[in-house]
Amino acid sequence: MKRGLFITFEGPDGSGKSTQIQKLNTFLQEQGHDTLLTREPGGTAISEKIRGLILDPAHKEMDPMAEALLYASSRAQLVSQVIKPALEAGKTVICDRYVDSSVAYQGYGRGLGESVEIINRYAVQGIMPDLTVLLLLDPASGRKRVQQAGEMDRLEQEALEFHQRVYDGYVRLAETYPERILSFSAKGEIEAIAEAIRSRTAEALEKL
Amino acid sequence: MKRGLFITFEGPDGSGKSTQIQKLNTFLQEQGHDTLLTREPGGTAISEKIRGLILDPAHKEMDPMAEALLYASSRAQLVSQVIKPALEAGKTVICDRYVDSSVAYQGYGRGLGESVEIINRYAVQGIMPDLTVLLLLDPASGRKRVQQAGEMDRLEQEALEFHQRVYDGYVRLAETYPERILSFSAKGEIEAIAEAIRSRTAEALEKL
Repeated sequence: MKRGLFITFEGPDGSGKSTQIQKLNTFLQEQGHDTLLTREPGGTAISEKIRGLILDPAHKEMDPMAEALLYASSRAQLVSQVIKPALEAGKTVICDRYVDSSVAYQGYGRGLGESVEIINRYAVQGIMPDLTVLLLLDPASGRKRVQQAGEMDRLEQEALEFHQRVYDGYVRLAETYPERILSFSAKGEIEAIAEAIRSRTAEALEKL
Repeated sequence: MKRGLFITFEGPDGSGKSTQIQKLNTFLQEQGHDTLLTREPGGTAISEKIRGLILDPAHKEMDPMAEALLYASSRAQLVSQVIKPALEAGKTVICDRYVDSSVAYQGYGRGLGESVEIINRYAVQGIMPDLTVLLLLDPASGRKRVQQAGEMDRLEQEALEFHQRVYDGYVRLAETYPERILSFSAKGEIEAIAEAIRSRTAEALEKL
């Protein structure tokens, strides 16, 4: 059996990933493809428990490297238990966030650098997406709105700087992997983006 | 302030690690050293939760790489929150199990190879022990006893092969890092081993 296509979606919350995932999934199913939708962190019982650990607000003292390793562990479990078997069964797998999120948020955002990419290379055991849709949302627009509302406190300022580093990380990834990553401004017209994604997905399916 | 000495203890359960750790700790305290005892996996609130996840018998489907990454995450948290600050405050830190356990159990035992050492190099951010005491217990003796009791079932056979690989891994580590790892047969005389550990620890303290 032919291995299925693996597509990931990346970008900050609020960039319209869920909308585009639903549109692509509907299109693929109408074309008769067997699809599997999953998300990170989570997607298996063990991964959901790891997700709970990462997101627990009581864990303020969590070390950035410990956090990056938890994301990688959750991902290793999702790959071996869900993504790899589905691809081997010929399904088209769509995953909301994957390795690029760790590189952008932990590698660039938290300043852990290339270690994050190396650790994740082991975590996913060679299973990298055939196509990644990146929806970019410039944090400068958000910043402007916050500034107009008044002075930023230290945490707001830190949060903005963090999201700027994440944004820069995503842009760098798109430049480094132009064959794999298809990027859009999240401010673009939804239907135009959806059509471009469908077209590129159709190409990728033919190349399989 | 002078950085403290970092000592780890390695070897299978039942090899007498706890006894030797207590003896060394008593000796160091009598000599006026400020010591900190900790253990893996665990040692911080977050690490204990990760430990619970790893050891939960319900998680039979846990992927070996996901497991190795959980151990590394628990270790990263312990290093940044406990071990590194204690060493910087001049304390002598004694840790029951550390990176070598992951290399022996996940790298050799579960067959994940050198990836485990590389992942852990990032997890501990340069904090490696000055001295490691390895108590070796040949699994062949255990095997003999089981065989005399009757036929081994598949799981017992697998368990023995796993422990043989872990043993071989520890022996390989001792050969690779002779300057750092001081190894003993766990069948040796307890007081003789304790004396050799004290002597080598005193040397290491002088070299600091």
